[in-house]
Amino acid sequence: MEIRKNRRNNETRAVKIHTNYLEMPDGSALIEFGRTRVVCAVSLEERVPPFLVGKNEGWLTAEYSLMPGSTRPRADRESSKGKISGRTHEIQRLIGRSLRSVVNMKALGSRTVWVDCDVLSADGGTRTAAITGAYVALVLAGRQWVRRGLIAELPITQQVAAVSVGTVAQQLLLDLEYAEDSIADVDMNVVMLGNGELIEVQGTAENRPFSRSTLDQMMDLAQSGIQKLFSVQSEALA
Amino acid sequence: MEIRKNRRNNETRAVKIHTNYLEMPDGSALIEFGRTRVVCAVSLEERVPPFLVGKNEGWLTAEYSLMPGSTRPRADRESSKGKISGRTHEIQRLIGRSLRSVVNMKALGSRTVWVDCDVLSADGGTRTAAITGAYVALVLAGRQWVRRGLIAELPITQQVAAVSVGTVAQQLLLDLEYAEDSIADVDMNVVMLGNGELIEVQGTAENRPFSRSTLDQMMDLAQSGIQKLFSVQSEALA
Amino acid sequence: MEIRKNRRNNETRAVKIHTNYLEMPDGSALIEFGRTRVVCAVSLEERVPPFLVGKNEGWLTAEYSLMPGSTRPRADRESSKGKISGRTHEIQRLIGRSLRSVVNMKALGSRTVWVDCDVLSADGGTRTAAITGAYVALVLAGRQWVRRGLIAELPITQQVAAVSVGTVAQQLLLDLEYAEDSIADVDMNVVMLGNGELIEVQGTAENRPFSRSTLDQMMDLAQSGIQKLFSVQSEALA
Amino acid sequence: MEIRKNRRNNETRAVKIHTNYLEMPDGSALIEFGRTRVVCAVSLEERVPPFLVGKNEGWLTAEYSLMPGSTRPRADRESSKGKISGRTHEIQRLIGRSLRSVVNMKALGSRTVWVDCDVLSADGGTRTAAITGAYVALVLAGRQWVRRGLIAELPITQQVAAVSVGTVAQQLLLDLEYAEDSIADVDMNVVMLGNGELIEVQGTAENRPFSRSTLDQMMDLAQSGIQKLFSVQSEALA
Amino acid sequence: MEIRKNRRNNETRAVKIHTNYLEMPDGSALIEFGRTRVVCAVSLEERVPPFLVGKNEGWLTAEYSLMPGSTRPRADRESSKGKISGRTHEIQRLIGRSLRSVVNMKALGSRTVWVDCDVLSADGGTRTAAITGAYVALVLAGRQWVRRGLIAELPITQQVAAVSVGTVAQQLLLDLEYAEDSIADVDMNVVMLGNGELIEVQGTAENRPFSRSTLDQMMDLAQSGIQKLFSVQSEALA
Amino acid sequence: MEIRKNRRNNETRAVKIHTNYLEMPDGSALIEFGRTRVVCAVSLEERVPPFLVGKNEGWLTAEYSLMPGSTRPRADRESSKGKISGRTHEIQRLIGRSLRSVVNMKALGSRTVWVDCDVLSADGGTRTAAITGAYVALVLAGRQWVRRGLIAELPITQQVAAVSVGTVAQQLLLDLEYAEDSIADVDMNVVMLGNGELIEVQGTAENRPFSRSTLDQMMDLAQSGIQKLFSVQSEALA
Repeated sequence: MEIRKNRRNNETRAVKIHTNYLEMPDGSALIEFGRTRVVCAVSLEERVPPFLVGKNEGWLTAEYSLMPGSTRPRADRESSKGKISGRTHEIQRLIGRSLRSVVNMKALGSRTVWVDCDVLSADGGTRTAAITGAYVALVLAGRQWVRRGLIAELPITQQVAAVSVGTVAQQLLLDLEYAEDSIADVDMNVVMLGNGELIEVQGTAENRPFSRSTLDQMMDLAQSGIQKLFSVQSEALA
Repeated sequence: MEIRKNRRNNETRAVKIHTNYLEMPDGSALIEFGRTRVVCAVSLEERVPPFLVGKNEGWLTAEYSLMPGSTRPRADRESSKGKISGRTHEIQRLIGRSLRSVVNMKALGSRTVWVDCDVLSADGGTRTAAITGAYVALVLAGRQWVRRGLIAELPITQQVAAVSVGTVAQQLLLDLEYAEDSIADVDMNVVMLGNGELIEVQGTAENRPFSRSTLDQMMDLAQSGIQKLFSVQSEALA
Repeated sequence: MEIRKNRRNNETRAVKIHTNYLEMPDGSALIEFGRTRVVCAVSLEERVPPFLVGKNEGWLTAEYSLMPGSTRPRADRESSKGKISGRTHEIQRLIGRSLRSVVNMKALGSRTVWVDCDVLSADGGTRTAAITGAYVALVLAGRQWVRRGLIAELPITQQVAAVSVGTVAQQLLLDLEYAEDSIADVDMNVVMLGNGELIEVQGTAENRPFSRSTLDQMMDLAQSGIQKLFSVQSEALA
Repeated sequence: MEIRKNRRNNETRAVKIHTNYLEMPDGSALIEFGRTRVVCAVSLEERVPPFLVGKNEGWLTAEYSLMPGSTRPRADRESSKGKISGRTHEIQRLIGRSLRSVVNMKALGSRTVWVDCDVLSADGGTRTAAITGAYVALVLAGRQWVRRGLIAELPITQQVAAVSVGTVAQQLLLDLEYAEDSIADVDMNVVMLGNGELIEVQGTAENRPFSRSTLDQMMDLAQSGIQKLFSVQSEALA
Repeated sequence: MEIRKNRRNNETRAVKIHTNYLEMPDGSALIEFGRTRVVCAVSLEERVPPFLVGKNEGWLTAEYSLMPGSTRPRADRESSKGKISGRTHEIQRLIGRSLRSVVNMKALGSRTVWVDCDVLSADGGTRTAAITGAYVALVLAGRQWVRRGLIAELPITQQVAAVSVGTVAQQLLLDLEYAEDSIADVDMNVVMLGNGELIEVQGTAENRPFSRSTLDQMMDLAQSGIQKLFSVQSEALA
Repeated sequence: MEIRKNRRNNETRAVKIHTNYLEMPDGSALIEFGRTRVVCAVSLEERVPPFLVGKNEGWLTAEYSLMPGSTRPRADRESSKGKISGRTHEIQRLIGRSLRSVVNMKALGSRTVWVDCDVLSADGGTRTAAITGAYVALVLAGRQWVRRGLIAELPITQQVAAVSVGTVAQQLLLDLEYAEDSIADVDMNVVMLGNGELIEVQGTAENRPFSRSTLDQMMDLAQSGIQKLFSVQSEALA
């Protein structure tokens, strides 16, 4: 018997992408994975980090934040605490690596792309929603850079999206919402490219170790889910 | 000849309030003053700051933040810098004082109300929009606390709203947008209660000092603008 | 019946200014508003903040601090806590704006004026005493810059001073001391120039909102008090 | 043709474990993966984090640090910079999760196990060496807790070890040293239990995405490497 | 030929102590060693640091700060930099140890004495002036605690004072001012009790090592200087 | 009757120095004073602090840290607390001053020497062991700089070493271990050069003041101890 009421174990939640949700950034998108909502914004800065100075190559940096009202109970604001948690650091690094894998840094020139993912509502899967939405914001920004003549052609090489999978009560679930995630035995995030190759596989035993065969099944499920996300991205960008 | 193209000098921008914009907080609102957009969220914490322990009275704390994508160029994230700017401190204190003036702290009991104002888009007037929207979120939260039986009756004594006024090229303007604010000679924020009494008057000469008679005219204009905001709040809460 | 014993409601406390109280800064003053005592020191730095580089204009930055022994109970040292409170930020910004309004930045050239206001004893009105005393220290420093040939002429355009007004038990009071300030219903700080024009008006309802007519009366009282401060400044600088 | 000179692609470096390397902690080990050397120390604190107070369960926290002299050029000291890097946070969390998976928290009672991994020499694979060595230090500490009568029986449920795998020039390599890691296309860390089940799988495309079949081969290689590490741990603890 | 113009090599500068310089603290003094001026303030807090809870013993903590205007050029404010320099830490610890050596901690009960030394003007010897002045402020505070009935008898066991000695151009100098200190080959601070015993001897070769016989001569000179300071303290407290 | 069981009051503990203990730094040593063990590492950075830019002179900076597992109970990690304690600051400054006294800064050119002293095991005397071991690491590094042709000749002018002395139960002790140090009445650290001249004398009354004659005897004892350390250094470097 399936554990879920409103969707199948192998289905994602309803995924919606609102393009150009913000007016100030070069590109932006509001992405919804069910009740999880993340605003993704992309801006360009005319300089690079110290290790790239003089190399005529660009860089991409991602930042991620939970708005205090995105969780219940309220999340303390990291700016008020004066430091960023280990969890935030880990997510920022994951988003950054994922997006960098599809950017042509040579084409950018000596510029830094800033990707900001701010979570309005957190119901599980904020990091995968952030990666998936940030890709859309990045393409929108890239198109504007081309339109403004900053860059000759779109500096994005292919699609990238991410999804979570996990196991609850020995059932495999795709795209876990918070209530599932908090009781999951295993939690895995997969980042994949448009051509089916992998960028990141992070599987963690939260309560119970997992076997190689579970790993294989989780990979299959993640790959099918990401195909679905690619379609939603493409429609949003059409 | 009036300086403005799309509205009269004594008009506010289009003001819209979307109630319950977020799902997690007890009450929330997205408020728009033209292109300025602020998400206001209200939560309750079952404890009070040290100076109120044992007094059976509540407290209200406000936090304010610019999302990095809310401005052009991008605003650095204060959590990454590890400290909050003087400007943010000043705005947080103003929002807190303004909202506390309409809360019945005895009725709250030993609880802290958290008011979070996160700016999605900053086109001038973010602090006045925050106060005006936070009032709506606060009433919505209060209604829920009553519904859940936490509190016997709505702990809010009357309406509160805020607006900016200023002078540009010797003309008096109501509700300045960013392009106006950045060249204003005088900038004033007024916070007023539903009964017409004042909570806060903050007038600052940015480029040029102002006379007592200009102060009087700015006060008149602010009061008329706030009446308009009271109507929009009431409709949103109806 | 007047609430005060030792002075009239419309009188300031005894105001004294000791010029050149310190030996190291270019200009300095110890100002006393009754038992409130603030050391004001002015120094010059041969560079400007990033946003002014290459513009051949100067800047003025103010810092404010309570010495731990200035209050009862002792005030924690902000350097030991590792961060500056919101109150300190707000006061520093107010002092800076007030003093900048009387400095000819072009005449300064690419230099930064540092204004340090350190409170030896805090009995209410430290920010208004700081502004009033800092003006004197600034003129003394300016005269020295001229004497040393750094600057051709005094880069100060006119006088500036500040005073607080407020209401206690429905009586209007000028220049509140701490015991009054702590029970005041309304607290207002006014910064005014020598020509009678206003630089800053900050009125805050601490316990009870205030009407337009109270605002008017407070402004009248503040203006009369500042005239008195102008005289004391002029004598000190004579 | 194999890329390596001094060992086979599917071999780990020489692994050595010196038990009780330090005198002060309850258990300690110096582990060497070739030129990578990590000191692992385990201590017990008689309290738990806030979320476990009153639950009669223990906790395990890991900290990780590069000694400045462990790298070339010298690594800046995080205590001097005043904050911990994202990389350090990520590694600390991984070590903590991995060790927690083999600790019986009920048996610990309301105590916190501190696991400190300090890197003396960093030549790649410091996080996997840290996990592998920390397991040994943990068992040694556990034995001492039992001997001292603090805990009735060894609170460790089974073995845990970790290894890295990756691809360089399309060859699969086990246990990468720094020179290999820095040019690797894919880098993967695997944490496994004595019974063959998985605790963590973290595969990252550094320069080039990877296919499902590469993922499978890397998993095979990692599992064989970890079997080797289990033997070394067992000998050290015999 | 002596190196000094206005005093003998074996003389201190003019030393003056103004008692009860501040109104808020329990005891205070402004001490002058020539142009060096330090405000010393002593307060009492009704609690002790964690390591003394429940032991019915007191503690004494000292803090030290350079006011920005105390030096030329201006000293950056440590609260603005967000951290305390190594030099400040070292001086705070020295002042604390020195004063603790003359306090009867049992007599204090579970209370902490706060000693704040704020430097108004820094012309060399600020740490020795701080110790010497803080002793006076401490006695004044102690007398008030007795008068208020907080403590049965003065919790101070004997006098303590401090002075610097050093060598410049192979001449021995007592109580160095800044111009001498900055070119001194050796710099030594000595803290001594009323009975002639030593609390602290800190001799540092700044530019040139020193022999045992120089050490002996510096000790002789320091002891004679401290006798002079004891007299000034006694007069101030008479 | 002597207080010590395993050595004479005027003996140091067994002192051992392992040269080139680490592979990455230019020079390194593991020094043992009995159970106290410190890793000393020396690296070179191709730049100088701001105050030396353009002067063609070098600098030397020392950092010191207790590894968490070096003490019992475990020492909190300063990087996790986000700030360095006063004690650490004081020790770092002492090590830096001591080593700088034997470096020819002109010979270094515009470079900074980094000396890192990381304590593996702390049983008293970590700062004196650090200075003594750092000298050895510095010579080893210097030899390498000469070999690599960076510097024409060894930039070290003479030997430097340090030892502690103190009094326990009125007996004079050389090189105190922790159990002695924690009950010592007086604690003194002496840093001496190969030619017998002094660099630093820091004597502190921990529980009981000390007389001039005790100071003299402690100096005698320290000097004899340091002669012993010079021999061990020379053997290690032979």
